[in-house]
Amino acid sequence: MMLSFTASCSVEEVAASCDAVRFFQLYVCKRRDIAVNLVQRAEKSGYKAIVLTADRPRRGRKEADIKNKMILPQLKNLEGLMSIEVFSDKGSNIKPNANEIFDPSLCWRDIAWLKSITSLPILIKGILTREDAIKAMEVGAAGIIVSNHGARQLDYTPATISVLEEVVQAVGRRVPVLLDGGVRRGTDVFKALALGAQAVLVGRPVIYGLAAKGEAGVRKVMQMLKDELELTMALAGCPSVEDISRSHVRTDRDRLQSML
Amino acid sequence: MMLSFTASCSVEEVAASCDAVRFFQLYVCKRRDIAVNLVQRAEKSGYKAIVLTADRPRRGRKEADIKNKMILPQLKNLEGLMSIEVFSDKGSNIKPNANEIFDPSLCWRDIAWLKSITSLPILIKGILTREDAIKAMEVGAAGIIVSNHGARQLDYTPATISVLEEVVQAVGRRVPVLLDGGVRRGTDVFKALALGAQAVLVGRPVIYGLAAKGEAGVRKVMQMLKDELELTMALAGCPSVEDISRSHVRTDRDRLQSML
Amino acid sequence: MMLSFTASCSVEEVAASCDAVRFFQLYVCKRRDIAVNLVQRAEKSGYKAIVLTADRPRRGRKEADIKNKMILPQLKNLEGLMSIEVFSDKGSNIKPNANEIFDPSLCWRDIAWLKSITSLPILIKGILTREDAIKAMEVGAAGIIVSNHGARQLDYTPATISVLEEVVQAVGRRVPVLLDGGVRRGTDVFKALALGAQAVLVGRPVIYGLAAKGEAGVRKVMQMLKDELELTMALAGCPSVEDISRSHVRTDRDRLQSML
Amino acid sequence: MMLSFTASCSVEEVAASCDAVRFFQLYVCKRRDIAVNLVQRAEKSGYKAIVLTADRPRRGRKEADIKNKMILPQLKNLEGLMSIEVFSDKGSNIKPNANEIFDPSLCWRDIAWLKSITSLPILIKGILTREDAIKAMEVGAAGIIVSNHGARQLDYTPATISVLEEVVQAVGRRVPVLLDGGVRRGTDVFKALALGAQAVLVGRPVIYGLAAKGEAGVRKVMQMLKDELELTMALAGCPSVEDISRSHVRTDRDRLQSML
Repeated sequence: MMLSFTASCSVEEVAASCDAVRFFQLYVCKRRDIAVNLVQRAEKSGYKAIVLTADRPRRGRKEADIKNKMILPQLKNLEGLMSIEVFSDKGSNIKPNANEIFDPSLCWRDIAWLKSITSLPILIKGILTREDAIKAMEVGAAGIIVSNHGARQLDYTPATISVLEEVVQAVGRRVPVLLDGGVRRGTDVFKALALGAQAVLVGRPVIYGLAAKGEAGVRKVMQMLKDELELTMALAGCPSVEDISRSHVRTDRDRLQSML
Repeated sequence: MMLSFTASCSVEEVAASCDAVRFFQLYVCKRRDIAVNLVQRAEKSGYKAIVLTADRPRRGRKEADIKNKMILPQLKNLEGLMSIEVFSDKGSNIKPNANEIFDPSLCWRDIAWLKSITSLPILIKGILTREDAIKAMEVGAAGIIVSNHGARQLDYTPATISVLEEVVQAVGRRVPVLLDGGVRRGTDVFKALALGAQAVLVGRPVIYGLAAKGEAGVRKVMQMLKDELELTMALAGCPSVEDISRSHVRTDRDRLQSML
Repeated sequence: MMLSFTASCSVEEVAASCDAVRFFQLYVCKRRDIAVNLVQRAEKSGYKAIVLTADRPRRGRKEADIKNKMILPQLKNLEGLMSIEVFSDKGSNIKPNANEIFDPSLCWRDIAWLKSITSLPILIKGILTREDAIKAMEVGAAGIIVSNHGARQLDYTPATISVLEEVVQAVGRRVPVLLDGGVRRGTDVFKALALGAQAVLVGRPVIYGLAAKGEAGVRKVMQMLKDELELTMALAGCPSVEDISRSHVRTDRDRLQSML
Repeated sequence: MMLSFTASCSVEEVAASCDAVRFFQLYVCKRRDIAVNLVQRAEKSGYKAIVLTADRPRRGRKEADIKNKMILPQLKNLEGLMSIEVFSDKGSNIKPNANEIFDPSLCWRDIAWLKSITSLPILIKGILTREDAIKAMEVGAAGIIVSNHGARQLDYTPATISVLEEVVQAVGRRVPVLLDGGVRRGTDVFKALALGAQAVLVGRPVIYGLAAKGEAGVRKVMQMLKDELELTMALAGCPSVEDISRSHVRTDRDRLQSML
């Protein structure tokens, strides 16, 4: 599981109550000491990787959040590090504060700095093109997460499943490629695996399960995805995950080429 | 006509009241003696072929059935062979029992076994790719039925009409290719014949006719399909079924190639 | 204007009240003397061409007509030739009678016969492919009308505008190519002319005008089409109809080729 | 900003209350002295360019205007030049008068005349093809505005964004290419810049802002577009407008070529 920087439980609390393989998702603030603090706590608490979110130099204009007067949750990981008042918000708009805190100057060079403060592998999340995938490997990323931030950052961003294969081909199995975005059913997991993802990450389904039935809802959603994936594999003739191959799905490109 | 394994009339009852050419559709259970029993009864009762359903290693997650609290009908063919209680079901879920009974390990090698217990020709139903069509011929199938199980087994399965030509070309007229799925009108029959199917099978229209007007409704539906096919042939300039040719329909591929 | 075989005014009545260039649209009945009679009356009454409808070996299954209990109008041209009772109909179904009267065996050879009974040029209406266009010229058609019978004869018939260019290229200006079907606006006329039609025919718009405001409505509709065509020409930079060229429209094929 | 010929404030009034870079949009009337008068007034008032609208030899059939009984506003620029009564209109139809006034014979040669009456650069607005773009440069246009007149002149006109690249390639940076039409969001501006437009023009958004909140609404709309463009640039990794490149967007053509 991947713990969010903005989670309402701390790095330590989650580690204490969960023995799953855990990654920690990091936003880098202008105050770099915060990243140092969080990364070291994650490392100490047995997290296995740092996932650096790279597609958020600024907060997107999330009109649904504005309309719904979305309020940032309490950020447990920052308690004692940064005055929580910074994040308190009047009604609808969380953009100004968030933009003051996160560092928009974050760039490829900062991976070296991040590697210097931890021995954990660094995954870069938010890659959508072959160019960025290659760049990520050059600066030492231990893995790539094809993500468009849930398509909430920028309108007209491509669907992650549509660019997955481009990234997979660029990476050539040198590092693992993961995917998030749009995964709602076991068939979605199957498609991503068939196109070369080593694993998929799910966000909204977990939240939906949580909203509907709390912890039991989350378990139910995850079980549903596993059952559907297994069923899809059985019906596609794949006894194991390793048997899921490129020939088990058909993309627009496959379709076009078969017609020529 | 093709009698279903799960029909509510037995092999013998149908044979006694119907002088059409009859095929028997077979699911293979873990208890292989059941298949032996049924196949031999079909052979004795004058059925002309065994249609082995190959796309059901497990029951798909049929959400409409769950919502509608679908209950399995009484399986007349299994009376005396298997305790009917096995199939009785509480409310919505017929999956667990059905998965216990059918044999998920069924594979290409089992065709040899099936051929060893009957002299009837074996048709394999549930083929959607050229690879499986070739495999089916290699293991001795006497015919291929392009079918996606009414698209009820697995989401994102291709429409049968869209893969028919691929299968037809792979088979090269060595064995007959039939198609089911999506046949609602005489124009659908015409299209399948033009793309190389030797015949088409219809499922839902028969059920719809039955639900609306019983036996008379089924007759009406079948007559409607025949009339529409004949009309389509007349308007397309085809005096006989043999005159229906590949040039009478236009696929996406034809369209693309004509534009290049 | 083209007078329909099934018009509610006779060949002679229309000739007496209309000094437009007139064509006569002919269905060939089993009783060939009827065609002889009608063609000779049209010729005597100053009609300029016979338009033989070739895409009606049988009446299509027109479900809207069945639902609306469509009744054939009085066929003025057949008075005295054929008992009108033949066409009288109980409620919804005009198919049986119509199929008894028209000759389904009509074929390419009959053009020679038709030419033997009139000196008027014969246009063939209902051509949708290059093969039939060539055939029509071989048997001596003086012109070709690309038509799908208002798309009412057979579902899945191609749109006439989509096959116009194929026919135009096959004909190579040896005979005029006209088009009907789907013409509702001046922009539709413009498109057909740009793709090589010498003229377009309109059916439904005339009926709509008639239903709304009688003769004045028809005049209004025709004027609207002329005004819209003229406006389209002005805005497309075409001072005269001759200036409308292939480069003034863009087909799917053009678009695809420009992308390669 | 570009002042419309039909604005309800005069050339001089706008110049007095606005220190933005201003262009003047010109329709050429049959009475050519009106163009001379307006162009010289624009030049005297510090306007930086004349934008000649070239896609309006006649007024399109604007059915929304007819339905809404659209009335021409008072044309302040023509006061004292032309009797305003000419433009007064009974209810729904402004076409007849407008067509009497504007010169439908305007053609490429008139650019030379227009250049003879002003030292201001002439931009031609209403170009949609490579052929017209080349012609415009040949007759001395200082810039090209890819525009389809808000798609209100002629149905089936292409979307400007879809032809922008064709024009940009034909022009080859010899003169600036601008675009209007369909610009509603900062992402639209970004796309046009990425495809080679030097700038975009916005029409409806300004009117919407004006209708909603007067001058403040216009400011709000323009600020919104700027903010959205800046955000899109940040999220696309473009620190400056110059960094927006062709590789930042993906057209149908790009997509097709990547699949071949």
